[in-house]
Amino acid sequence: MKPVERAQLAMMLEVCAYPKPGNVDRCHDYPDTRLEHFLASTILSRTALEEAETGTGRIGEIIKHAVRDTNTHGGGNTHFGAFILLIPLVYGNDIPGAMKAIEKTDVSDAIAFYKAFAMTTVRMNATDELDVNDPHTLTVIRDREMTLMDVMTHSAGYDMIAREWVTGFPLTRRGADILIRTGPGRDAIVQMFLYLLATEPDTFIIKKHGSAVATEIMRAARDVLDGKRTAENLDAECIRRNINPGSIADIVIASIYIALGEGWSWDS
Amino acid sequence: MKPVERAQLAMMLEVCAYPKPGNVDRCHDYPDTRLEHFLASTILSRTALEEAETGTGRIGEIIKHAVRDTNTHGGGNTHFGAFILLIPLVYGNDIPGAMKAIEKTDVSDAIAFYKAFAMTTVRMNATDELDVNDPHTLTVIRDREMTLMDVMTHSAGYDMIAREWVTGFPLTRRGADILIRTGPGRDAIVQMFLYLLATEPDTFIIKKHGSAVATEIMRAARDVLDGKRTAENLDAECIRRNINPGSIADIVIASIYIALGEGWSWDS
Repeated sequence: MKPVERAQLAMMLEVCAYPKPGNVDRCHDYPDTRLEHFLASTILSRTALEEAETGTGRIGEIIKHAVRDTNTHGGGNTHFGAFILLIPLVYGNDIPGAMKAIEKTDVSDAIAFYKAFAMTTVRMNATDELDVNDPHTLTVIRDREMTLMDVMTHSAGYDMIAREWVTGFPLTRRGADILIRTGPGRDAIVQMFLYLLATEPDTFIIKKHGSAVATEIMRAARDVLDGKRTAENLDAECIRRNINPGSIADIVIASIYIALGEGWSWDS
Repeated sequence: MKPVERAQLAMMLEVCAYPKPGNVDRCHDYPDTRLEHFLASTILSRTALEEAETGTGRIGEIIKHAVRDTNTHGGGNTHFGAFILLIPLVYGNDIPGAMKAIEKTDVSDAIAFYKAFAMTTVRMNATDELDVNDPHTLTVIRDREMTLMDVMTHSAGYDMIAREWVTGFPLTRRGADILIRTGPGRDAIVQMFLYLLATEPDTFIIKKHGSAVATEIMRAARDVLDGKRTAENLDAECIRRNINPGSIADIVIASIYIALGEGWSWDS
């Protein structure tokens, strides 16, 4: 299977997986972002993913194209974090290849990435020096000659997606290993999601609700894994409190992509 | 939007639409064919749809490529009927363009189509002279110099998909008109599906369960439109009795494709 198709299948499989506490799935929409928006983005990101597969253009620019092409529907940001992971992974085929590609990013990638960021509705930490809503940020990046890897290093402290770039995709790797260990079929995706949720604080939850809530959700996911409550029950609570582990969902997509490339089958 | 993306969005929107009596939707799988299989086919048909958009190759061969590329998962046939409609529609962009493309089909298209047919698990009428499981059929097609349009004319009496080719896509057109009249948003797809179900006997139901059942389902769909029973209630009955209006689903996909090309928006 071509890397681009593995990436699209990963995006499709992640959003369909159920029950998945807090996130959009086949049984649950957000009011403004629905299952169809996630699946439309999966379809509409094809051209950018093909650029990554064929190495046509630079990583930062390709991330920008993916955001541009999936911004044509009204569902807002669906896959910004996923693209940050998938595009180098498709570009390099696997994690070692992605790391080589990432090391070659330069200032032009950082600039393109910030332009992509500005097209999304994703918020940054209010105190961030490299605020995406501040036009001065591009000047700072140019003056300091920051590469896209430098930008990710800057954000790695509070963003687990950026941290994947900086540390060699360890959570992506762990998720893929869980899938392979769990065996074929879509239920393995739910297991992997719950395991990551139980072991890693989701930085998207931290940004929106603070660290205490992120820790609370980790404990709750652990309770689901231990059979003390159901995933459906935690899902209902997350929905009610508007808690969605969006960054772990992005990592789940990257993990599925890797596992599919290593022979794991979604189709049991 | 590119025709290929309109076609893929149409396939995605059709399978997600809910509640849709009898067919796979976001809330209901068949045991062997699940939501993910339909969505995987949507992704994996991209290359064949691009061949249609760019006019690379002949219609029959492109249908064969679509079947080949979507046969790589274990969910069986998901979109054979939809491809028969979509590929000329994408090839010609719209219905008049599709009719021009169809008129140019020749014996080679008919042969390629039969080879595609043989790759699916779709059954024909047992009495059909052009039985896909009989190796002699290809000889008959060659001897009689049947074009793919001739093959469709042969099948038009008992297959509403073939009838669309022969009669200029009237149901596809009607479905698109219903979407446009109903207005933007996914609920229009459900309304259109119910309307077609109430007014046209589904030939896939006839093949599987006979004419009486097809007529009964038409009346039941009419009752849903008239508010005498709910779509969910009819859905549950169809699932229990293993009745799925698969051919109307294929026409719904073609109708969404046309409506998207005429400005109808799925995204309300």
